[in-house]
Amino acid sequence: MRLAPAFYADLHTGLRADLDAAGLDALVLDDPLDVAYVTGFAHFPNERPVAAYVPREGEVLLLVPDLEREYAADQQASATLAVYPEFPGERSPFAVLRDAVGAQPRRAAHAPSTSYARVQALASEFADTRWTVSDLVGARRLRKTPEEIALHVEAARIADAMVAEGVRLVGEAKDDLPTEAELAAHVTRFGAQLMYAEHEDVVVVPMLTGGLVYSGPNSAQPHRLPGGDRLRRGEPFMLSLGCAVGGRFVESERTFLLGEPAPEQRHYYSVVREAQHVGTEALRPGTRCADANRACLDVIRRAGFAEYLRHRQGHGIGLGFHEPPWVADGDDTVLAPGMVLSSEPGLYVPGHAGYRISDTVLVTDEGPRRLTGYPRDLADIVIGA
Amino acid sequence: MRLAPAFYADLHTGLRADLDAAGLDALVLDDPLDVAYVTGFAHFPNERPVAAYVPREGEVLLLVPDLEREYAADQQASATLAVYPEFPGERSPFAVLRDAVGAQPRRAAHAPSTSYARVQALASEFADTRWTVSDLVGARRLRKTPEEIALHVEAARIADAMVAEGVRLVGEAKDDLPTEAELAAHVTRFGAQLMYAEHEDVVVVPMLTGGLVYSGPNSAQPHRLPGGDRLRRGEPFMLSLGCAVGGRFVESERTFLLGEPAPEQRHYYSVVREAQHVGTEALRPGTRCADANRACLDVIRRAGFAEYLRHRQGHGIGLGFHEPPWVADGDDTVLAPGMVLSSEPGLYVPGHAGYRISDTVLVTDEGPRRLTGYPRDLADIVIGA
Repeated sequence: MRLAPAFYADLHTGLRADLDAAGLDALVLDDPLDVAYVTGFAHFPNERPVAAYVPREGEVLLLVPDLEREYAADQQASATLAVYPEFPGERSPFAVLRDAVGAQPRRAAHAPSTSYARVQALASEFADTRWTVSDLVGARRLRKTPEEIALHVEAARIADAMVAEGVRLVGEAKDDLPTEAELAAHVTRFGAQLMYAEHEDVVVVPMLTGGLVYSGPNSAQPHRLPGGDRLRRGEPFMLSLGCAVGGRFVESERTFLLGEPAPEQRHYYSVVREAQHVGTEALRPGTRCADANRACLDVIRRAGFAEYLRHRQGHGIGLGFHEPPWVADGDDTVLAPGMVLSSEPGLYVPGHAGYRISDTVLVTDEGPRRLTGYPRDLADIVIGA
Repeated sequence: MRLAPAFYADLHTGLRADLDAAGLDALVLDDPLDVAYVTGFAHFPNERPVAAYVPREGEVLLLVPDLEREYAADQQASATLAVYPEFPGERSPFAVLRDAVGAQPRRAAHAPSTSYARVQALASEFADTRWTVSDLVGARRLRKTPEEIALHVEAARIADAMVAEGVRLVGEAKDDLPTEAELAAHVTRFGAQLMYAEHEDVVVVPMLTGGLVYSGPNSAQPHRLPGGDRLRRGEPFMLSLGCAVGGRFVESERTFLLGEPAPEQRHYYSVVREAQHVGTEALRPGTRCADANRACLDVIRRAGFAEYLRHRQGHGIGLGFHEPPWVADGDDTVLAPGMVLSSEPGLYVPGHAGYRISDTVLVTDEGPRRLTGYPRDLADIVIGA
């Protein structure tokens, strides 16, 4: 599934209007996700600059090294290619871009994410341009179009299926429970196979399917990477999985109780379930991100578990697995229809385990719509009791 | 396998001397690989800043969000933790760092890779500091210590084993050749299992084992990501695999001919094999990177295949899968013992296939030493003839 050329044509028209409103002649974007958003070209980033050049007037350019030229053409990138031979090369890649542009823009912007070294390189090659910083593409990426939402919906179906497959594998295991790394590899592969089986034109991104798998005390560390520890009966484990369709991500995460749950396990789970319910219900147009976060985390605080909080309610999700807005203290963004967010409060008891439930949620005029839907009742997440 | 505290203590001593020589009071590093290099803390980066603060005098600090606190402690990060609650949070993470530092440094540097937005945030929170840019950590990372080289050697053994396992899978397949994505998933999982089976303390990084797998015309696009196409007899395919031990990467790549090779396939392969031999032999102390690259690629040009070149000879490899120096036009770095480089010339025939051989090579006083060693003779890379 790939967005049609009309999506990019509309976006370019919108960006030109944004440039006009900002008094800018051009925008240079070198974040790989901004490049994918503006041109449809997905790639594995490295030190070779890949950049989209969006002028107020004239054609959108895509600067690529020669080794990405045919790959960009194959992906039908919605831009005219400007190709440099190699990095670092005898001439700077940005000199090649300048030649392709023709007359230098008077006033141009890069994104806040552009590195200091590349800002210097741009300023050096476009010496007649007055450079500034602009997040106008970031602002557009906050709200997803109906075409993008369709990709998220399909990604959600696959992510839920990955969770279900992990549950199946663990549920059918006898004495031979998998390790975290084995389980992670299994569900990652399952998701990719499902995607290829059902789609003709897969937009391949570096992490097409994958995620975190951790069990017992390891799961008390929210971003710990999957290791060689084996799941153990009597301990919770977490499947924190995601995938991208057409380059658009979702995440579907559940905590499972393996074996007959202890009273404290039930209690921790029920508190997180309630927090996730309250937080998700708060994701409505007009609500400030920081306020949704507070309502969500207050459920955990009121249960007496403030010390077990390690992170905010959630984050935006789109081309980036994490992207603005942040459903967190300090983010005053007002929620609006078309925003896609994770809702994932967690409770982390050191030495025991972590409990987290995440769904990917679309903000609509009618309220929050969960795109992922793996069941969340206690009976659904107890395995092998 | 994890580097011992003595590695970090020596490194910190060296960095303090570098700061002194540069007239700097402190260095702030927010690139995840610089952070891993200086503190031993490996993590999956996201929007939450994680930074190492290295003062000329005083202790090294590691700024982390609360959700990474226990993971950093578990990894025995060689630094004192400065923890901020969450991102964006009611206070900037860099304000928390400033509080932990005490008196603001008079003159401090960030790295060239630091984003424009973070440079602004640092300048805003450390308002009394004169900020500049410095690549002094980049300069140190160019040459690997004996302890780091031991990690590369072990990674090379595993990467070679991944290539051999891919060959086994394809060689034993009858009519059911795998797809690129299936083969990539298989060897990735195999490598991870091997690593966990043989090591107690695996340093987990986002891509622990993995790589690119492509066949036939797809392989003519050097950085195309693995897709759903099935391997086909009569066509070449490429296994471009790598892994990290103790966070240190290598790559091992071979092109295989599946079925009785056609004369043109033999010829393309022999030209690339010769180029890789000449290029690898050129990786000696005292040689400029650009000169090694020229000697290597000239073999392909002299064979009449200049139009099939898509990239340079290679790149540095270490904590980064790609890192300086670049064995390329435009890089005048003089090779020195302890540098670890990929040597990977390629020849890409559009519509037909790509041919590339990569080894990870250590520069020593005695000359180049190949760390990866999967065989390269024609007889070794023909499967199922």
